Amino acid sequence: MSANGVKDRSNLVPFSSRLKEGRALAQDVWSIFNVANLPSDCINLGQGYMNFSPPKWVTEAANEALQGVAENHYSHPKGRMRLRQAIKSFYDPEFNRQLDVETEILVTSGANEGQYSVFVAFLEQGDEVIMFEPFFDQYLPSVTFNGGKPVYVPLHPPGSGGKSTSNEWTIDLDELRAAITPRTKMIIVNTPHNPVGKVFTRAELEGIAALAEEFNLIVMADEVYDCLTFDGKEHVRIANLPGMWDRTVTVGSAGKAFAATGWRIGWLIGPEYIIRPTLAATTRIVFCSNSPLQEAAAAGLEQARQRGFFENQRAEYTERRAILTDTFDKLGLTYTLPEGSYFILLDISKLKFPDDYPFPKSVLGRGRDFRACWFIALELGVSSIPVSEFYCEEHANIGEAYGRFAFCKDTDTLRKAAARLEGLKKFIQ
Amino acid sequence: MSANGVKDRSNLVPFSSRLKEGRALAQDVWSIFNVANLPSDCINLGQGYMNFSPPKWVTEAANEALQGVAENHYSHPKGRMRLRQAIKSFYDPEFNRQLDVETEILVTSGANEGQYSVFVAFLEQGDEVIMFEPFFDQYLPSVTFNGGKPVYVPLHPPGSGGKSTSNEWTIDLDELRAAITPRTKMIIVNTPHNPVGKVFTRAELEGIAALAEEFNLIVMADEVYDCLTFDGKEHVRIANLPGMWDRTVTVGSAGKAFAATGWRIGWLIGPEYIIRPTLAATTRIVFCSNSPLQEAAAAGLEQARQRGFFENQRAEYTERRAILTDTFDKLGLTYTLPEGSYFILLDISKLKFPDDYPFPKSVLGRGRDFRACWFIALELGVSSIPVSEFYCEEHANIGEAYGRFAFCKDTDTLRKAAARLEGLKKFIQ
Repeated sequence: MSANGVKDRSNLVPFSSRLKEGRALAQDVWSIFNVANLPSDCINLGQGYMNFSPPKWVTEAANEALQGVAENHYSHPKGRMRLRQAIKSFYDPEFNRQLDVETEILVTSGANEGQYSVFVAFLEQGDEVIMFEPFFDQYLPSVTFNGGKPVYVPLHPPGSGGKSTSNEWTIDLDELRAAITPRTKMIIVNTPHNPVGKVFTRAELEGIAALAEEFNLIVMADEVYDCLTFDGKEHVRIANLPGMWDRTVTVGSAGKAFAATGWRIGWLIGPEYIIRPTLAATTRIVFCSNSPLQEAAAAGLEQARQRGFFENQRAEYTERRAILTDTFDKLGLTYTLPEGSYFILLDISKLKFPDDYPFPKSVLGRGRDFRACWFIALELGVSSIPVSEFYCEEHANIGEAYGRFAFCKDTDTLRKAAARLEGLKKFIQ
Repeated sequence: MSANGVKDRSNLVPFSSRLKEGRALAQDVWSIFNVANLPSDCINLGQGYMNFSPPKWVTEAANEALQGVAENHYSHPKGRMRLRQAIKSFYDPEFNRQLDVETEILVTSGANEGQYSVFVAFLEQGDEVIMFEPFFDQYLPSVTFNGGKPVYVPLHPPGSGGKSTSNEWTIDLDELRAAITPRTKMIIVNTPHNPVGKVFTRAELEGIAALAEEFNLIVMADEVYDCLTFDGKEHVRIANLPGMWDRTVTVGSAGKAFAATGWRIGWLIGPEYIIRPTLAATTRIVFCSNSPLQEAAAAGLEQARQRGFFENQRAEYTERRAILTDTFDKLGLTYTLPEGSYFILLDISKLKFPDDYPFPKSVLGRGRDFRACWFIALELGVSSIPVSEFYCEEHANIGEAYGRFAFCKDTDTLRKAAARLEGLKKFIQ
């Protein structure tokens, strides 16, 4: 330490090795493809958040809560009783059981923090967690931060060329079985799936369930897009398969359900032996989740059915999806029609762009899809997310074929984006 | 697994060993002394949250945010720019420097999650973190969950009998030096202090700083009560001592500042080499903090100085404190006059209660203070928190002499509580 207080940087306390293992210090795709780095008139179909507000009757409930006293102070770490009751009322028929608000429901600070807390509660050093690739990118560091080891099992993409649906991305149960070791503790099943849009079928889930039972594994069912399925596709909850309640923790999200991704209210539903340690974890991580927006989420769940909210929202998203897919069809482009969630994977493997295009350094160091998505953003004015980010390094090449376009935007914006994307014709043959 | 889906519990996946190490599954003091377990007319001076609302001009800003679009969606993991700017404007004069909103300020989901993220970012298995006892009870599991080992250095209580101030609780720098080992990575300095109310003096902080420099330690300065000091006592920021900016991360809280403990908005301020890895950690734990209440916290910091808000609030808390201390004085009771925070430690070592009082089992298994506080709650109708909870097991006996009474309540409630507490006379001589 010099006299003027300027530190000799060689002396600095080093950060923990878990950050290195967890990809956590690499520049992530969200900061590279951030609106701040792109032209201001670029239409953002990148990160999955809405460009519209939550329903008025839900924000109104938040405002009412703000007028109270208790609603502005600590909630019980399990979550506010009103919200736990609302979750119970909404999900009892979904799970076909009487959920116990004290032991089987846990409110968390977003679905993300809920999942992180499960890893804190259950992972020992070296425990393995299986996830299907492509995977929601937060899983990887959340597992490694807590001593776990991610193990990847691929979703196999459809044969190239032509239209395909998200359910043509398939799992191979033999590959899943082969990935299980004595250290496997958990499987993450994300359905509807981000970024593929796949809604796992009952048969697929039964196959996964049988392996989970055989090897005594916990299933983390990340179902945050459960209210967003299309074309009459049934969302099957793996927790509802015979015997599976006992080993499944199901993850839900107010942000996805009510167009409020910034509210950070999620929930876990599962058996007491999973919820109780997870409560112990989340209590230390965040103590509790914010109170006013718990009240709002409660109002949302309390009223959603009688208002037909999710049916309407599903119809709206179906229209939004069609705006993009109609354009892709017109152009004869290859893409995956999502049966759930709000993402479309466009095949960009045949996109032609000049090698000497002035790409930023952050993009040059990554897969071809980073360059392709960057090129589309700058040349056509529509941003998307390169899909290799959702693969481990070894398998990133599979993801390089795709750009992920989010359609959780209003129809005007999507129409404008679609008009711009018609310009893809001259770059993809 | 039996055919009817009832699980053989011997088969359950066990929770992680970190929960056992972190006291995290023991029934904590907050759930034992929860309003739900106490008579409904008991006045709650236990947990430290207000029984009044945040200022109207702050909640109004939250409501305005709820009317927006971006204000309901994901924030940048660093925090919303408006809040980071507000933190900078408020704290630049406090730290006597130009804070960089990109690299030196981080918004977190409450101060608690901010501290947890620092531990995630910096602790390796076996790293030691020194904390003064009594300590805010969340530190212990937050450290052990991340592989750290808490090391305790006592605050020495004043000699018994008579009035004392919080600054008569003293540290012994030789004890602090003796606690440092080659594995020590961090010291937590909580000032103003919960539960003692001690505001560390410049001389004490200089002594701690010298040791932090000598052994290259990070200082986590938990200053969430920085706006609550009394009697003209100066709040000294250890980050402002010569050379200490470089090794200090300072923790702040909107909940404490604006009577909104349920908003879960806190912040960290420090050098880039601490903030950057901590950002990487918090991004994976919670992704970001809730957006509408970040806007409200920003409004609070933006307007607090011109409104003279903290001066008024300090005067209000001084009045609140006096309501309890006047009563204790009148009764001739021994207590610690807090120079900061909103807690008073009452000496309950001489409280007389029948051994065969019908205590619940949860209280019987703990220190004498648990029984004393329970007796006061049931016999006098005022709840408090037994202070042995703020000590490690080995030193819990020091804390057994005290009950912690929170005065973050409106004056009517405090006067009613004071009137009831006059009944202590017949139990304490």
